[in-house]
This record gives sequence, structure tokens and C-alpha cells, in this order.
Amino acid sequence: MRDEIGPPVVGMVGGGQLARMTAQAAISLGVEFRVLADTLEDSAAQVCTGTTIGDYRSAGDLLKFAAGCDVVTFDHEHVPGEHLAALERVAAVRPGGAALRFAQDKLAMRDRLSALGVLAELGVRCPRYRPVSSPAGSSGGSSPQASTADVLAHGWPVVLKATSGGYDGRGVWICDSEEAVAEVISHGIGLLAEEYIPFDRELAVLVARSPKGQGASYPVVQTVQRDGICREVIAPAPGLDPDVALRAQRLGLALAAELGVTGLLAIELFSVGDELVINELAMRPHNCGHWTIDGAVTSQFEQHLRAVLDLPLGSTTSSARAAVMVNVLGGDDPDLYSRFVHVMAADPGVAVHMYGKQVRPGRKVGHVTVTGADVEQLRDRAWRAANYLSLGTEEPDEDLGADGGR
Amino acid sequence: MRDEIGPPVVGMVGGGQLARMTAQAAISLGVEFRVLADTLEDSAAQVCTGTTIGDYRSAGDLLKFAAGCDVVTFDHEHVPGEHLAALERVAAVRPGGAALRFAQDKLAMRDRLSALGVLAELGVRCPRYRPVSSPAGSSGGSSPQASTADVLAHGWPVVLKATSGGYDGRGVWICDSEEAVAEVISHGIGLLAEEYIPFDRELAVLVARSPKGQGASYPVVQTVQRDGICREVIAPAPGLDPDVALRAQRLGLALAAELGVTGLLAIELFSVGDELVINELAMRPHNCGHWTIDGAVTSQFEQHLRAVLDLPLGSTTSSARAAVMVNVLGGDDPDLYSRFVHVMAADPGVAVHMYGKQVRPGRKVGHVTVTGADVEQLRDRAWRAANYLSLGTEEPDEDLGADGGR
Repeated sequence: MRDEIGPPVVGMVGGGQLARMTAQAAISLGVEFRVLADTLEDSAAQVCTGTTIGDYRSAGDLLKFAAGCDVVTFDHEHVPGEHLAALERVAAVRPGGAALRFAQDKLAMRDRLSALGVLAELGVRCPRYRPVSSPAGSSGGSSPQASTADVLAHGWPVVLKATSGGYDGRGVWICDSEEAVAEVISHGIGLLAEEYIPFDRELAVLVARSPKGQGASYPVVQTVQRDGICREVIAPAPGLDPDVALRAQRLGLALAAELGVTGLLAIELFSVGDELVINELAMRPHNCGHWTIDGAVTSQFEQHLRAVLDLPLGSTTSSARAAVMVNVLGGDDPDLYSRFVHVMAADPGVAVHMYGKQVRPGRKVGHVTVTGADVEQLRDRAWRAANYLSLGTEEPDEDLGADGGR
Repeated sequence: MRDEIGPPVVGMVGGGQLARMTAQAAISLGVEFRVLADTLEDSAAQVCTGTTIGDYRSAGDLLKFAAGCDVVTFDHEHVPGEHLAALERVAAVRPGGAALRFAQDKLAMRDRLSALGVLAELGVRCPRYRPVSSPAGSSGGSSPQASTADVLAHGWPVVLKATSGGYDGRGVWICDSEEAVAEVISHGIGLLAEEYIPFDRELAVLVARSPKGQGASYPVVQTVQRDGICREVIAPAPGLDPDVALRAQRLGLALAAELGVTGLLAIELFSVGDELVINELAMRPHNCGHWTIDGAVTSQFEQHLRAVLDLPLGSTTSSARAAVMVNVLGGDDPDLYSRFVHVMAADPGVAVHMYGKQVRPGRKVGHVTVTGADVEQLRDRAWRAANYLSLGTEEPDEDLGADGGR
């Protein structure tokens, strides 16, 4: 840790778009922001003066990076647990390794959440789950067949998840047969079998918590995923029962406190009738909160900085009646910039955020946000802009599965 | 100019807070942004990866900087005219030297505006003015006494202005006597004598114009200056007659076109009864537009980038019913950051923008913006936050001089 007066130095491990947008927020706060990036071409490295090139899997690189920082935080969950412990001996690491473990290890997360009484109080549950043994796994000695059998009592399909390392749909398999299960197990990675949840729609709640224990929740949003990748976020979730929204926000604040999270906690939820089922956790700025840059008083990126710096949190109030964010996925045209020019001409009210990443099909290369009052118009405008940028022809879902829409 | 495909490179001459906030906006657009700064400690240099250290008064430094840029623009008006001409031979310079001259030379500006028929059509005028000779001046051979006499036909006080180089109240003298005039003239700088305008209030209009000729105007704002320094901006100007607002916006668009401005043009106006009197022009992001970061769909900084890149302009619509911006001036406490923490705790809805500048009494070191519906509440919150940061005890003006407030 540094030994100086003046604004603190925050270091973020990882140089992706989350770090890029956090760097942008740090400019207003006047705090010094640094990233540990793989290369100078990384999304955040392009725009962050405090970039160190290094490997997040190397304890040496991490410790060297941390030495110049007051607080170390993360734009991904992939720093090995043993390195987190080493980091914590030399710097304030937020979230800390004990909390981050529950975002890194889905089995540990399920085990921990299942032991929390607050879930039942809030009418929230986790999917039924079982560890699955595999040659490289460490989840005990029961046979895969025996392990998945309990979950399978609820019938096919069954969801297999890599216990760690997955993102954007990678590391999740929806299996319809024993053969499909066996095929996934043959990859030799640590797995978890989960009950498949036939949800009405997906929701997400994003909260911040500071080391002093202050918490703040953003409005509950609806997310639309395709092929496991977030495509659209609607804030607030249309037609959501205020009681359900309140339960989700309470859940966010309760889990952040129970798990000792510092910084942001995003909880992805399945909405099934009146029930909320916890899908995933993340402890960093999250795709479900990108709308806050243009649609909330305090963006999630500034909020994350405030939280990890133990500063008073900012207002999470929406600044518009509604906001719709659609991710821009790379298409076949590498010249994203020329396409962007046309989007600006077609709709001067669209806020486009480019990540400076090389275009590869399916890769998140930016996002668009439109704010206003009429959700259907906003969705139409946001999808048009994103499709134009992606050379895409995707249609937004017509049925959002909202209670209010039935 | 570069010879590459992909997003363009914009270079801004000057490393102050305007360049810093433009760098922040460039991150979303995905364009590469560079600054020519005096030192690495400059406000913008702290946060801009593309910083070149150099002297804006050196043709060599300017040309070297421009060589890597597609477009060159400015965060101040102090680049010498002959260097602008040299720059224009190697790069797209926006605004160009011919336009920028009217922001650099107040006498040239007055002469040019006086020749424009559009002013009378819009019910707008300039103050009566005369060049004042001085030993170092170049404004003809008439004696100072004779030159100021015409202006003085309208009585004391008379305003003397440095024809070039002034800012934030520097280079403006309000003189009550011949002795005071003689004292200013004795400094030996080029001067202009102007009629003193006893205004009801000050307004400002900010427009953008692209090389293709597209124009867009932000809502007309009220500005409050003290000791020649902008202290507060209220958007939109409270109680402003919609007809007056429209005339001001038309004036902005007309002057941008007549003067051939590319980028932003800010016009500071005196409101006197039904009449609008032109005070000053600036061709860059301007203090009167800082509120747009938090209160408009497109910030002035993104808009300036769009305009100088000849991109379609963004929406200038307000995203809140009202926004109030108050500048944070340096006070006696150099530890601005510790004071900031208390402001966050006191009002989580205040957006604070820090410039990373060393605190010196009276220096602009940041600004705060509050958005919402009730202007008086917003003013109260913004002034409280700014006063706390400045260790100030200033009170906002109770009488805004608005027609609606009488």
C-alpha cells in the first residue's frame, strides 16, 4: 500500500471493457486509476494512463502491481484464490478473497447460499444442485451417475456448469440425456449439476456495499440472454410487482452483507411465478448495470469505485423513467467505426459506448443505451442501433414474460 | 494527417480541464484522443494516454503533434494566429484559424459582428466599442482620450478589455474615471473600450456546427459570474421567454455559420429588457455547458468531438427538467479529496467532477452538478456542495434577474 496523502490509487486487475468504463468514471472522482492488463491493446489499457502489463495468474505480477495501489479490485473473477490470499497480505483487496470465492466457485456459492435462512424469508431459492465428480474434479468420490441422479429426479434437461472459469455462456451445458452428460464430464473439468429452471423471465439486481457496511441497490432490471450471452437489459424490469422488486433488492443487500462483499454484487435471478431463483453471482461492475452510465444518477462504475474506496455511496436513482441497453456483438464487418457514423445520423439520441476491441463475431465490442419513457420505443431504437453496428438482424423478444404483460 | 483506416485520432492543444473532460467523452466514442500539454501533471495529461509534452506557442511542437492526428482542436484560444496557418497546411484544424480569430481578437470579433445583418433581425446587438491605442497596440494613431470619448458619451463606467489573451475575468477592467482608464492603458497592451451594459442577468447559448454544416443548439442557460469568473449555471435559464430563448439559439446557429465555426461555439449574452447584447464568444467546450455531462443526452464534450470529426451531432435535449452547475474554486485547504468525501456523505445525488489540479485560492479545481425538478432546491444543494469543497461561504444570488422571477 502507498504511504502518501491526497487522492487514493485504485488498481483493477484485468483490462477489459469493465476496467475501461471504470477508468472513465475515475476521471470525475479525481482518484488515480491503474489497470493490470495483458497487453497495451486491451480495452482499458488504451485509455488508462496507469496501465501495467502483467499476468493475473502470476503472483509476482500481482504483488508488484498491488505495491503501488491503496486498493486492489477486479474486472473479472479469474485471479487464483492462493494469489488473492497473498495480495491481501500487502494491500486492501476488495472484494476480498473470502467473498470472491463465492463468485469464483459455483459449488461453494451454492453450498453457502443454501445455508442462509434469509433466502426462505424472502421467498428466494437456489436450483437443486449436486457436485459432479470427474477425473480432474475434487468433489468427492461418488459416481457421476449417482451424483446427477438426485437432480434428475426432477427430469430432463439438467444443467451442467463448470464450477469455475465460465463466463458469457461458456461453461454451461443444458443436457437432454445421459450421453450428453457423459460427453461434458469427459472434458475433465470440475462440474456442478443443477435443476433446469423453466423461468418466465430473467431479472437482475445490482447492489453496492462498502467496507463500513453501507449498502445501496439499483432498481431491479430485466435481462434477456441468448446463447448464454446478455443481449438486452431493461431498467426497471417492466411490470414487475413492487413487492417482488423489493424482495430482490433486499436479497442483494442481504447477500452482500452475508458474504462480506465490498464493491458491487450482481445477482442474476430467474423469475418463476412469484418465486425468485438465484442463477449467478458476480462481484464487479456487471453487464446488467451498463444502463446506469446514461440512466442513473451514479453509474455502477463510479459506485464500484466509491464502494471499494469505502466512500459514501452515490444515489442509485434512475434519471429517466426507463432505460434500455443492448449489447453490440461483433459482426462480419471489422469497420465498426464507419457503421457507428450511420447510427449517429439515424438516431441522435442513442448513447453508444465503444470498447475499442477488435471485431470478432459474437464478441462484445460495445453497447448502446436509450433513455426515455416508452419502453417499447426505447427497445426498438436500441435494437436498431445495435443491429446496425453488429450487421445483425436480430429481433427483440416480443413476449418479455412480465406479469404485467400477460 | 495520418494515413490509416479505423477510428480517427483527435488531438487537442492544451491540457486543462476541458481537454480532461473531452478525453473522458472520447472513451465512449472509441476515437483516439491526444493532448498537447505543458506538463504530465496537467489536468488532461493525468488521464489521457495520448499525451505529448510541448509548447502551444512553438510552431515546431504544434506541427509535430499535428502529424499524428486526423483533426486538431483546442482547449483554449491562445495558439498564435501564424501557427494556426502553419497547422492548417498539414492537418484538419477545427475550428480553423479564420474562425478562431474571432474568439482570439475581441476587436476583430466586434468589427465582424457589427457587419452582420442577422443581429438586427434577431433583436441582438453588440455593446458600443472603440479600439484604444496604446504604446504596444496596433489600433491606429488616435489618442486614448479621443478613442474612449465616443464610448464615454454613454457615461461612466466604461469597460476596457484586452483585445486578446484574457480569460476568467483577467483582461477586463471596469473603469470609473479617466485616471482609471489611463492606468490600464499604461500597461501597454492592445485594448478595446466598450459601453458598460447594466444587464438584468447573463445568459449563454452553446451550439455545435460540423464542417458539413449541421448545427445543434443546447437549451439557453443563465450564468452567474463573480469577479469575472463563472460561478453558477442554471439550465434552462429560469423563466426565460421562449421567444427570447429561440432568438438566442438562432443567433448561435447563425453566428456559427457566418463565422465558419467547426466544433462548439459558446456565446455569452447580457439580457437587458427584451434585448440581447453579445458579450463574449468562445469556440471550444465552455463552462456554460458543463451541466450537459449529467443533464443532457449528449455532453458538450462528446458533441465537440462529433462536430470536429464531422460526425452527425448528438441530441442536445435535457435529460432532467433542470440542472444547476456550480464551479468549485480552490480554497485554503489543499486536501480537496477529504472534503469531497464529506460532500458525498451529505448528498449522494450530487455529481462531482474533479479536475486533478493543485488547489490554489480562486482556481477552478472542479465543478458540481445537481439535476432534478425544483430549481431552488437544486441551487441550494449545488452551492452547499461547492462551498464545502471550496471552504467557501458564498451565498447564491437571491434575485436571478429573470423576467419570470419579478
